[in-house]
Amino acid sequence: MIKRNKVFIAVSLDGFIADKNGGIDWLTETPNPEQSDLGYANFSANIDAIVMGRNTFETVCGFDMDWPYTIPVFVLSNSLTKVPVEYAGKAFVVNGPLTEVIAKIHTLGHGQLYMDGGGTVQGFLKEDLIDDLILTQIPVVLGEGIPLFKAMSKRLDFELVKTETFIGELVQSHYQRKAVPIN
Amino acid sequence: MIKRNKVFIAVSLDGFIADKNGGIDWLTETPNPEQSDLGYANFSANIDAIVMGRNTFETVCGFDMDWPYTIPVFVLSNSLTKVPVEYAGKAFVVNGPLTEVIAKIHTLGHGQLYMDGGGTVQGFLKEDLIDDLILTQIPVVLGEGIPLFKAMSKRLDFELVKTETFIGELVQSHYQRKAVPIN
Repeated sequence: MIKRNKVFIAVSLDGFIADKNGGIDWLTETPNPEQSDLGYANFSANIDAIVMGRNTFETVCGFDMDWPYTIPVFVLSNSLTKVPVEYAGKAFVVNGPLTEVIAKIHTLGHGQLYMDGGGTVQGFLKEDLIDDLILTQIPVVLGEGIPLFKAMSKRLDFELVKTETFIGELVQSHYQRKAVPIN
Repeated sequence: MIKRNKVFIAVSLDGFIADKNGGIDWLTETPNPEQSDLGYANFSANIDAIVMGRNTFETVCGFDMDWPYTIPVFVLSNSLTKVPVEYAGKAFVVNGPLTEVIAKIHTLGHGQLYMDGGGTVQGFLKEDLIDDLILTQIPVVLGEGIPLFKAMSKRLDFELVKTETFIGELVQSHYQRKAVPIN
């Protein structure tokens, strides 16, 4: 089983994933007449499950649309014990140390995981549990907002896998964690 | 005279331009066997003068090498009145409102300016005085350090001019300020 923990997220030039009110309208303001999916289908073709925080889960639940995922969603939460009944079989609450959360998801047969949401990404990065970081840069300096990265005491080295431009404006770069030398 | 205020700077994936001790060794750790200049000669071919803060100036003065610039350097400082005598004719102290600093440099015949150093970039961005933002992404998450961007209340929209990859690892993207509609 291929095991990879992946991040696929859009950030402003100054590193924000949402404005100070949590708004993300600015993410979709770049004209996209041909409705490019900005690489998402290609990315999600190699994803077995999604891991997100409770905030992101509740945001998705609040969208005026059908449940958008066809793969299991694992919701990191210490306060929820289970998801609302309408999401039973689609979303599952997980908690505990992140290495154990991942191990549990692996035992369920899901190896390639999409870590979504700022807090979730920060939590996994802090534990050095991110293998792939796919960042899409939106050409705006927001000035303030919710940052993707958070202070950490450890430095993490990545290497560039590829970079491509979407809709003439968005640079998407795929980085993978460099192999850490075994002492 | 072409008038452009430009930034050309390297940043970590999490937006730092130096580590927490001001160190920049991590900037040059990516193997560069053919000594690529990472686009610097091309960039500096269209630069008439450099604007930097006193800290950056003093850092450059402290390097164990000859003065590296062949174009005038304007040092933003409220505390210096003039540069040390060995830099006379090469570096010049300027101060006052940034729009006036730029106007003064323009009257001296220098239109295309390279704004260097974090504080300088932040100061000019805050006043919406940056036309070109050329960012070179280093594939490392530093965790902590000196950030390129600082909180600002105003959002600034840019557009992608071009992006290219150097030494297989560094993505350099050139953004220019979008024309601001005149009300």
